[in-house]
Amino acid sequence: MDLVQKILQGDPRAAARLMTMIENGSAESVPALKTLYRHTGKAYVVGLTGPPGSGKSTLTDRITEELRRLGKTVGIVAVDPTSPFTGGAILADRIRMQRHSLDPGVFIRSMATRGHLGGLARATNDVVDVLDAAGKDYVLIETVGVGQDEVEVVRSAHTSVVVAVPGLGDDIQAIKAGVMEIGDLFVVNKADREGADRTAMEIEMMLQLGKATEGWRAKVLKTVATEGTGLADLTRAILEHQTFMLAHVGRQEKGTERSRRIFHELLQERVTARVIERAAADSALEHLIERIAARETDPYSAVEEVLKRAGL
Amino acid sequence: MDLVQKILQGDPRAAARLMTMIENGSAESVPALKTLYRHTGKAYVVGLTGPPGSGKSTLTDRITEELRRLGKTVGIVAVDPTSPFTGGAILADRIRMQRHSLDPGVFIRSMATRGHLGGLARATNDVVDVLDAAGKDYVLIETVGVGQDEVEVVRSAHTSVVVAVPGLGDDIQAIKAGVMEIGDLFVVNKADREGADRTAMEIEMMLQLGKATEGWRAKVLKTVATEGTGLADLTRAILEHQTFMLAHVGRQEKGTERSRRIFHELLQERVTARVIERAAADSALEHLIERIAARETDPYSAVEEVLKRAGL
Repeated sequence: MDLVQKILQGDPRAAARLMTMIENGSAESVPALKTLYRHTGKAYVVGLTGPPGSGKSTLTDRITEELRRLGKTVGIVAVDPTSPFTGGAILADRIRMQRHSLDPGVFIRSMATRGHLGGLARATNDVVDVLDAAGKDYVLIETVGVGQDEVEVVRSAHTSVVVAVPGLGDDIQAIKAGVMEIGDLFVVNKADREGADRTAMEIEMMLQLGKATEGWRAKVLKTVATEGTGLADLTRAILEHQTFMLAHVGRQEKGTERSRRIFHELLQERVTARVIERAAADSALEHLIERIAARETDPYSAVEEVLKRAGL
Repeated sequence: MDLVQKILQGDPRAAARLMTMIENGSAESVPALKTLYRHTGKAYVVGLTGPPGSGKSTLTDRITEELRRLGKTVGIVAVDPTSPFTGGAILADRIRMQRHSLDPGVFIRSMATRGHLGGLARATNDVVDVLDAAGKDYVLIETVGVGQDEVEVVRSAHTSVVVAVPGLGDDIQAIKAGVMEIGDLFVVNKADREGADRTAMEIEMMLQLGKATEGWRAKVLKTVATEGTGLADLTRAILEHQTFMLAHVGRQEKGTERSRRIFHELLQERVTARVIERAAADSALEHLIERIAARETDPYSAVEEVLKRAGL
């Protein structure tokens, strides 16, 4: 039986194998992804983002528990900005795997951010598609809400949850602000700490200053993920937003938006690769870069030259 | 007198005007950047990166003071992952501006990360070029070391400084690891806190596990930026690395590496824009995205179709 068939039947090892191919940027993954794609669009995608140390992983684990209690299957994609240098992502993955290791209804995958020219958002999207095609009811994407790529990842979810913590200082608050407009739900985690009510109030205030609500009023909730406090409420709020999305906005609209992002991401990657490939073929590229470094030409003129040669 | 001439003569308002054009992605900035480019390559570029709350801004301010004391002029680019939603970057900018507002030898610019399709690294590079052409001896780039784009920004500096703080927890440590391999210098800031020696030792150990040193042995220093402690040593270490770079690696090599990144960044942006423009012209793009959303085609096939139409 081929890889795609196995994945569609929910074989976790087959899914893991394709995910590794995706992460390595292997061309072999493409035919499989093409075939899988028409079996996607069934999973409900929830993105969780927040600053480092806000307890996103624990929250994700707890939400998974709640969803499992409701009989739903769950895929988790943890986007981890760790380098291969320390293997942090792999370690974290192992620890979390143990927790759900006996549960075939949960599949966890960590994605490390690596490589120069992006591709993280594209790879994450592909992994979400694999989990979707494999029949997971929910896919939870967990990412650090600081970098541009990471925010992009969460933005393409059906429901976006922004996680904050009391008293992390101004620098953190500024970062939180960067993801303010993407949140459907806001969670003040570690709410047993001093200042939780104030942080919740500040978020409420920022929300009132912000965008018009398009029918959905963003909620602010408090949790203590390590103790499971507030998790039932948070999960209920996620399901409420899901119901709202299906009834009002429709998955279709958000689906089109998501398709647009995925398409652009992939187009950008492929087009650049193709143009660089061509330019490299006549060995002119290296010479051009040296000329930029020597100030004999400038990056803008060099790019124009390459575009012209590529007939663009 | 035209904009470029004014910038070359060090007019800060002219520089600020071009920077705004760069940030807005205005096409008008391109001819100016082309002309300016051959006046660049003189400034020494230092990148500072670290997790939120590590005190990068204060460190940057203090290093600036030290460099000013040595009679050097300084440009600062603060890459701030804040959205226009709260104007955090602008506020932070104002506060810091006041500190150096009477000093014509210092120019500070904040860059907010915004927009879908990247461009932050490209815009930051362009702003560095403006400061370079305007005659600043040193350009300090300050960024949160978490996102992929942000790490890219610092990677292109001549000297990269990675900032850590004692006791920020495992989540932070993992992130720090992500920038471990790009550091020429490591700073444990807030070193008056408990655990500073341990953090410094951990970094030392990770360094020993890591890459071969290529002649430069990465240093670990301790600072308390708010009190100015350790700043003279840090500045001396930056100058030492500069001397090392000029003598051994040569600015040329790092310059070529930097040119390569800048070129790729720009190529990616321009090529994608061009291809999307073409596809949009025959209104086929929107239809294609809808077909992806409806699962009538998949992103990979769609991108292949667009590439084919663009003759790539």
